[in-house]
Amino acid sequence: MTDRRIVGPVRIVGAGLLGASIGLALRARGVDVILADISPSTVTLAVDYGAGRRAEPGDAPQLVVVCVPPDVTAATVAAELLAYPEALVTDVASVKLGPLRELEALGADVSRYIGSHPMAGRERGGAISARADIFVGRPWVIAGHDGISYARAAAVEDLALDLGAVPIEMDAAAHDRSVALVSHVPQVVSSLLAARLRLASDATVGLAGQGLRDSTRIAGSAPDLWVQILAANAEPVVEVLREYRSDLDTMIAALSDVDATGARRAIAEGLAGGNDGVARIPGKHGQAKHFSQLVVIVDDKPGELARLLTEIGELGVNMEDLRLEHSPRAQVGMAEISVLPEAEQRLTTELAARGWKIAGAFE
Amino acid sequence: MTDRRIVGPVRIVGAGLLGASIGLALRARGVDVILADISPSTVTLAVDYGAGRRAEPGDAPQLVVVCVPPDVTAATVAAELLAYPEALVTDVASVKLGPLRELEALGADVSRYIGSHPMAGRERGGAISARADIFVGRPWVIAGHDGISYARAAAVEDLALDLGAVPIEMDAAAHDRSVALVSHVPQVVSSLLAARLRLASDATVGLAGQGLRDSTRIAGSAPDLWVQILAANAEPVVEVLREYRSDLDTMIAALSDVDATGARRAIAEGLAGGNDGVARIPGKHGQAKHFSQLVVIVDDKPGELARLLTEIGELGVNMEDLRLEHSPRAQVGMAEISVLPEAEQRLTTELAARGWKIAGAFE
Repeated sequence: MTDRRIVGPVRIVGAGLLGASIGLALRARGVDVILADISPSTVTLAVDYGAGRRAEPGDAPQLVVVCVPPDVTAATVAAELLAYPEALVTDVASVKLGPLRELEALGADVSRYIGSHPMAGRERGGAISARADIFVGRPWVIAGHDGISYARAAAVEDLALDLGAVPIEMDAAAHDRSVALVSHVPQVVSSLLAARLRLASDATVGLAGQGLRDSTRIAGSAPDLWVQILAANAEPVVEVLREYRSDLDTMIAALSDVDATGARRAIAEGLAGGNDGVARIPGKHGQAKHFSQLVVIVDDKPGELARLLTEIGELGVNMEDLRLEHSPRAQVGMAEISVLPEAEQRLTTELAARGWKIAGAFE
Repeated sequence: MTDRRIVGPVRIVGAGLLGASIGLALRARGVDVILADISPSTVTLAVDYGAGRRAEPGDAPQLVVVCVPPDVTAATVAAELLAYPEALVTDVASVKLGPLRELEALGADVSRYIGSHPMAGRERGGAISARADIFVGRPWVIAGHDGISYARAAAVEDLALDLGAVPIEMDAAAHDRSVALVSHVPQVVSSLLAARLRLASDATVGLAGQGLRDSTRIAGSAPDLWVQILAANAEPVVEVLREYRSDLDTMIAALSDVDATGARRAIAEGLAGGNDGVARIPGKHGQAKHFSQLVVIVDDKPGELARLLTEIGELGVNMEDLRLEHSPRAQVGMAEISVLPEAEQRLTTELAARGWKIAGAFE
């Protein structure tokens, strides 16, 4: 129970998925966790799940973590700063500059506030979906500002480390521009792409392949939460969307007259720009690395994929990535396995020798 | 060797990935396959791989399959129609109306031509990447037109069925509009999104999550091939891109003044439209079905994922989908497992009891 950096008590305001998950993880390390929420039944649920205890008179938290929707983050942080004059206060909202400016405008004591943002992915579910391990291995941005020293905010870094996350120091404005680019704009682009499918015929959507599935997956995200996120980070999002629209205009102009001088070059440059951009995204372990892919046919029944992966393990090959593809009306799946290039040929040969059908191998 | 519908000989013109893969699959069924290519060394390579034999004087193919780039498809089909006056001729280009119109303009005998399009995904690699199973379970569009009866074109359906594909009858214009929507526009949207990352800092791209990876994966596609595809299907692509841009304009306007009357509603409707659109994409086996997701922490070493999937198989649970997520600098992965909703709770309980760490469960 001493395997922790944080001392506590830690007060968590907002006992939804993130708040309750933080509570579970801290409780597992023996930290005293105090839970609060505007909804009494939400607190009851989170307490039932073991994420912490109810607030009591005289509580003196070391750290307050505000886990409420972006719209009410600043007001909640301000109230906590007033209520607990000895505590450091952080929040986990996915925008950072707006809340900071609001707090300054409210005259809050920001020398005890530092915003943070655990990149913990999906926010579906509420307290019922909370899990202690949800932050493991994920980046956790700590958004410093001129009004507080990073050292003063050490408890937030301790929190991130205790939860298994990777703390990343980045100022609020840089954070907001970064998430506009890597998260908020992709959400808009994907949602609007998927929206084009609403009136498509069944025959048309029946031709959908993995490319469409991948590029529209995040279009399934909850609109109510995303309206708040986009509105709270509107300026950086609009800036990127305008650049995107400018490229789109160029592409539309070129495709509207493909035989014009320079049209095919413009199309090619748009596509090549995508090649260059996607190569910037770090792969596994943060390295931008090229893997070879192997596509293996897998019968659609329990245990078949396990059998394949067991045999790959027996061959001593470490998979770098794996995804399954299913085709309409087919009773087989395709497992696309990414491996280091030097392992690909041997794996292909060995799997084929064991009777697996290899549908493709690519560098 | 009689497990086949097609009689043969089948002449394949263009011995790249698709041509050589068709050849391999037909040879495996004992069909006489004749290979031709503008490049003699390409034919030699494909013959070496066992995809067929060289052309000989007196060859009388039942069916000619043209597997050359979109730019030269019509001219090649026209030449084959002239050279083999008894043969049915098809092509596998990913656009269908342009080649048909070109053939009609050339005065070719289109009563013996029917275009087709196997939705066989990646076209990386050339003959060296050819595999007999590449078409298994994939849709194969057969693009009928007024100049030929579907019955007259039966050999193309036989070809698709012999290769394990699912034949789908659709006229050329409908095909082109469909692939514009489900394949060509997503390519443009994804490429232009990824292009925005070119100048991003390492710290920014370090925050990338699975959403960005998914929505930009196809941006890695080969520009030279895609310039041809987009140029050949420019009209339907531009039509969809203009609708997309109109939605984008609405979103940019709303985000430029988020406090204006109706702005948040406009943002919400754009996002909700994405929800509706993504729900139209058929899942596994062509059904639009909702699955529950379970996220399990998997140590990053050989055999761990196999062990997990083996245990899932032992529990008698059939995975509907699976994807792996890796975070930067983390030595663990997250396996997101999709199962039928009724199986999710039991699987969560049983896996936790076996010591697996469950990082999340979602409906």
